[in-house]
Amino acid sequence: MYVIVVYDVNVEFVNKVRIFLKQYLNWVQNSVFEGELTEAEYNKIMSHLEKIIKKSNGHILCYIVRDKKYLKIDEIGTPKSEITNFL
Amino acid sequence: MYVIVVYDVNVEFVNKVRIFLKQYLNWVQNSVFEGELTEAEYNKIMSHLEKIIKKSNGHILCYIVRDKKYLKIDEIGTPKSEITNFL
Repeated sequence: MYVIVVYDVNVEFVNKVRIFLKQYLNWVQNSVFEGELTEAEYNKIMSHLEKIIKKSNGHILCYIVRDKKYLKIDEIGTPKSEITNFL
Repeated sequence: MYVIVVYDVNVEFVNKVRIFLKQYLNWVQNSVFEGELTEAEYNKIMSHLEKIIKKSNGHILCYIVRDKKYLKIDEIGTPKSEITNFL
């Protein structure tokens, strides 16, 4: 499954979410990660994020396609440098 | 086609992008819009956003699926109030 995660959390949780997601997905924009996940990895991420969200009254959306072939990605411009340096 | 637009633009362009996208898509998170578009609407949005990005060295990603049936959306938490009030 190919997953896109977008999140809006209080500033004190931003790094925590970023460092956690970086273990599984690619950081592509300020609050956006994407990449291939197994079902088990996805469930693990979701349960961890749920704990964070409960503490931070944030908001997370996950867009999932069974196979990346169903997804077309268009890009305009380039990601900010802190993203490319973090990779 | 179902489209998810995520954007990272300089602060002076944020409202411009938001007001523009609101004409076509649903605002679901801080810098995230989603919704159904025709090919013509999508092309119109992209050419407009390209002009904004050239001025603001921002970054936009568009995730497109031909049909929403290929997409599963999971949500944790609730969007911030300024989003629900803006709707």
